[in-house]
Amino acid sequence: KMALQKVDLEKAYRLINHGPTLIICASHDDVVDAMSASWVCPLDYDKVTAVVASGSFTRTLFEKSGKFGLCVPFFKDTALVARLGTTSMHSDKEKLAGVEMFYENGVPLLKECAAYMVCEIIKDAKNESEFDLFKAKVVAAYADTRVFEGGHWKFENLDDELKTPHYIAGGQFYADGAAKFEERAAIIG
Amino acid sequence: KMALQKVDLEKAYRLINHGPTLIICASHDDVVDAMSASWVCPLDYDKVTAVVASGSFTRTLFEKSGKFGLCVPFFKDTALVARLGTTSMHSDKEKLAGVEMFYENGVPLLKECAAYMVCEIIKDAKNESEFDLFKAKVVAAYADTRVFEGGHWKFENLDDELKTPHYIAGGQFYADGAAKFEERAAIIG
Repeated sequence: KMALQKVDLEKAYRLINHGPTLIICASHDDVVDAMSASWVCPLDYDKVTAVVASGSFTRTLFEKSGKFGLCVPFFKDTALVARLGTTSMHSDKEKLAGVEMFYENGVPLLKECAAYMVCEIIKDAKNESEFDLFKAKVVAAYADTRVFEGGHWKFENLDDELKTPHYIAGGQFYADGAAKFEERAAIIG
Repeated sequence: KMALQKVDLEKAYRLINHGPTLIICASHDDVVDAMSASWVCPLDYDKVTAVVASGSFTRTLFEKSGKFGLCVPFFKDTALVARLGTTSMHSDKEKLAGVEMFYENGVPLLKECAAYMVCEIIKDAKNESEFDLFKAKVVAAYADTRVFEGGHWKFENLDDELKTPHYIAGGQFYADGAAKFEERAAIIG
């Protein structure tokens, strides 16, 4: 079963460097929400950007708390990713029914995901309001050692259901696929 | 063989929504460079963010010209992606030897890629200097109709070599893999 291990902050970007669709979680005053998001990207080894529309309920929470959690879901959970990307707490208070959460460093996270990052927002009012663009510092990162260990994903040896989802549009997800190793690719920022 | 088709700008984000590793191209005064970059992300349907380190020669070019090209490479070209991510025009003037380019809307692009975006920088001096973070508007987008058509990738029916690469670190690339369709996932921003 699941065994979470800390990921060094200077390797946190590797949890999302391959571009999986993520789930952003936030809470404030005992109100919790979670939403799916494709537009999250490394900004540095231990920093991320996240584009979150102003209409999002989750955003109203992390704008108050100043922090959010990022979950890298498993491919087996695309139905949940779809649900958390198409329902809003504004109109559906039962949105998170059946979804189990836990808290780490003061942010809520979904149980049973492949990896996690706890992020503190680096305030940039202009980009937040004009472009819905948030910058954040990763203050803690964790991964399920079945799928990520020693700074690397282990997709080579995993069933598709334990890989990560990549969303396109119109309901279409892809899992991670074939692996290839290029000796000279030390760093591609 | 390759047949490039225009992609509607409101669907341009779909070319990179699944998180492939890209090649950024730029030119100024007849000097051309291209570099690999994983940290490029949709900012809107027709906008992107790109994190490019200040030491990059390619950056010196697009900071002068105000625009850059994005290429989505094929998985068969991971050796080239690795090479363009580990060599610099600062020290290796032969970096682009053998690489064929063409021009579109005034930016250079690598021949034989899966898709392209022509981007004009939305100036943000503070984020560029403090975070190496660039914002840009997509002014034209193209895709090879063998692999992307009608706003969707067609990875289901393609050999791995015609899929797109996702870079982790240490030389490890993954192709796109298994597909799954979730009916309720209309939009995940």
